[in-house]
Amino acid sequence: MPLDRSSNRAARSMSPAQAERGRIRAREHKEHTAGLADGFVQANICILPKAWADEFLLYCQRNPKPCPLLSASDLGDPMLPELGSDIDIRTDVPAYCVFRDGVLVEEVDEITHLWRDDLVTFALGCSFSFESALLEAGIPLKHIDRGQSVSMYVTNVETARAGRFNGKLVVSMRPFNAANAIRAVQITSRFPRVHGAPVHLGDPSLIGIEDLGKPYLGIGTTDVADDELPVFWACGVTPHSAIQAARPPLCITHKPGHMLITDLLNTTLASF
Amino acid sequence: MPLDRSSNRAARSMSPAQAERGRIRAREHKEHTAGLADGFVQANICILPKAWADEFLLYCQRNPKPCPLLSASDLGDPMLPELGSDIDIRTDVPAYCVFRDGVLVEEVDEITHLWRDDLVTFALGCSFSFESALLEAGIPLKHIDRGQSVSMYVTNVETARAGRFNGKLVVSMRPFNAANAIRAVQITSRFPRVHGAPVHLGDPSLIGIEDLGKPYLGIGTTDVADDELPVFWACGVTPHSAIQAARPPLCITHKPGHMLITDLLNTTLASF
Repeated sequence: MPLDRSSNRAARSMSPAQAERGRIRAREHKEHTAGLADGFVQANICILPKAWADEFLLYCQRNPKPCPLLSASDLGDPMLPELGSDIDIRTDVPAYCVFRDGVLVEEVDEITHLWRDDLVTFALGCSFSFESALLEAGIPLKHIDRGQSVSMYVTNVETARAGRFNGKLVVSMRPFNAANAIRAVQITSRFPRVHGAPVHLGDPSLIGIEDLGKPYLGIGTTDVADDELPVFWACGVTPHSAIQAARPPLCITHKPGHMLITDLLNTTLASF
Repeated sequence: MPLDRSSNRAARSMSPAQAERGRIRAREHKEHTAGLADGFVQANICILPKAWADEFLLYCQRNPKPCPLLSASDLGDPMLPELGSDIDIRTDVPAYCVFRDGVLVEEVDEITHLWRDDLVTFALGCSFSFESALLEAGIPLKHIDRGQSVSMYVTNVETARAGRFNGKLVVSMRPFNAANAIRAVQITSRFPRVHGAPVHLGDPSLIGIEDLGKPYLGIGTTDVADDELPVFWACGVTPHSAIQAARPPLCITHKPGHMLITDLLNTTLASF
C-alpha cells in the first residue's frame, strides 16, 4: 500500500494547535477545547463594534487582572497575526454566542455571515494556561481531578470603569493547602497575561462572597477541606459580565469553554 | 580652621556598612543592629569547632529555608571575604553569646581571646533583608510600626537531620491582609538566601502552633486582625535551637539582634 507522502509531510509540519484549529475550522470539532493542543495558549474572545471597542480596550487596560489582553485586531480585520499565522476569528472557534443589546440571541458555529467592517476582536488570556503551569509543578487541581468546572463567584469588588463598561469583579476559586497556596502564588505570578497572581485568599466574606457553596451559575467544585484555604483569581467572566451590563447592540463571544486555540506556547507567557 | 582633608576623604570612601562595622570593632557600638547601615545585609553568626562544623554545614544544606547559608569560613580563618573585604569575626559583631555543652556561659563583646585554629564561622541570612524589601514595597510590618519584636513559634515540623543536628522548625509570624500576604509571598520568594517564601499561612494549628498569643520566649507582636492572616517564615532561631540541643563543647553565636553587618546590599540577594 503506497504511503501518501505529501499529506503525511503536511501533518508532520503542523503543530498540535494548527491541527486542532484546522479541525475546528472544518467543523469537525464543535465541542469545548479543554485538554486540546496541550501546552498552547487558549484565549477568551470578545468581538465588538468600533463604537464600543475603544472603551472596551480602555476597560482591559484598567483591569488587567480580569481582562489580560493578549491581542486586539485591526478594525474590520478578522485575522489575529499576533496569536498565529492563519487565525481567522470568523471560523476558528468551535462555538460562538451572539448578544444583541446585552441579550444572548443565538449560538452559532461560525460567524462569517455576521462579520462587518466595523468589528474589532479582543483575545484575552485564560486560566487554562496557569492551570497547566500548576499541574506541571505537581500541584493538584481538585476540579480537574473530578472532571468538574472551576467554581466562580461575583465579588463586591468594583472594577475600574471605562466609559460604558464597569461592574463587579468575578473570581474563580481553587482550594489548596497552605504550602500549595504559597507555590500557586509563586507560579501564577509568573503569568500576568493569564490573570497572574491571586487577588485574594482565605476568608471569602472579605470580598463579599457569603457562601462558597453557591457559585456563579450554580456549577463548580466548591468544597474546601479543613487543611485548605480557598484561593481566588480574577476571572475572564468579568469582562463578559461588564459587556452584558453595558448592552452594546452587537457582541460576539466564544461559548464558555469553547476557546480560540492559539499558536503561542503557555511557557512563552512566563514573565521570568 | 583647616579642613582635615585626609580623614574626610577616608570617611567619604567608606560605605555605611564599613562605617558601622568600624564603630563596632572599636567598641563604640555594643547595642543591637536593627536599623543600622540601611540596605546592607545583616547576618546571623554561628561559630563551631571543626569536629562539629561539617555536620552543621550539612544541616544548613538540608534545611535551606531556616538555615540560608551566606558564607562559611575557611578552617581557623576569622575573615569572611565573601561578605566584606575586612570582616574579622572576632571583633566585628557588637555582642556574642558563648555556649559550652549547649549552655550559655557568658556574653562578651569580642572573642579574640576565644579564637582557635579549629573554629569555623557560619554566616546565615536574616529576615531583616526581606523585611527591608517588604517595607520598600509599601507593605506595613506591624511589629516594626510598634517597635516590637517579631513573634516566633516552635512548630511540630521536624527539620532534616544531619549527624547530631536536628530539631523542630522555628518560624516567625507576620500578620497581613490577603492582598499583602500575596505580595509578601511574591516579594520574599525573590530572596531565597534570607529565608525566602513563607512556609505556611492561615491556620496555625496545622503546623502545631496551638496559641498565637504564646510566642517563643514570650515576646513579639502576636495579634492578627479579623481581616488578616498569619503568615509564617522559617526563622534563623531554628539552627540555634538545633545547636543548643546538640550540645557541642563550644559554640559562639551573635547575641540575638546584634548581627554582623556585611558589605552585601540586600538588593544583590534578589534572585530576579
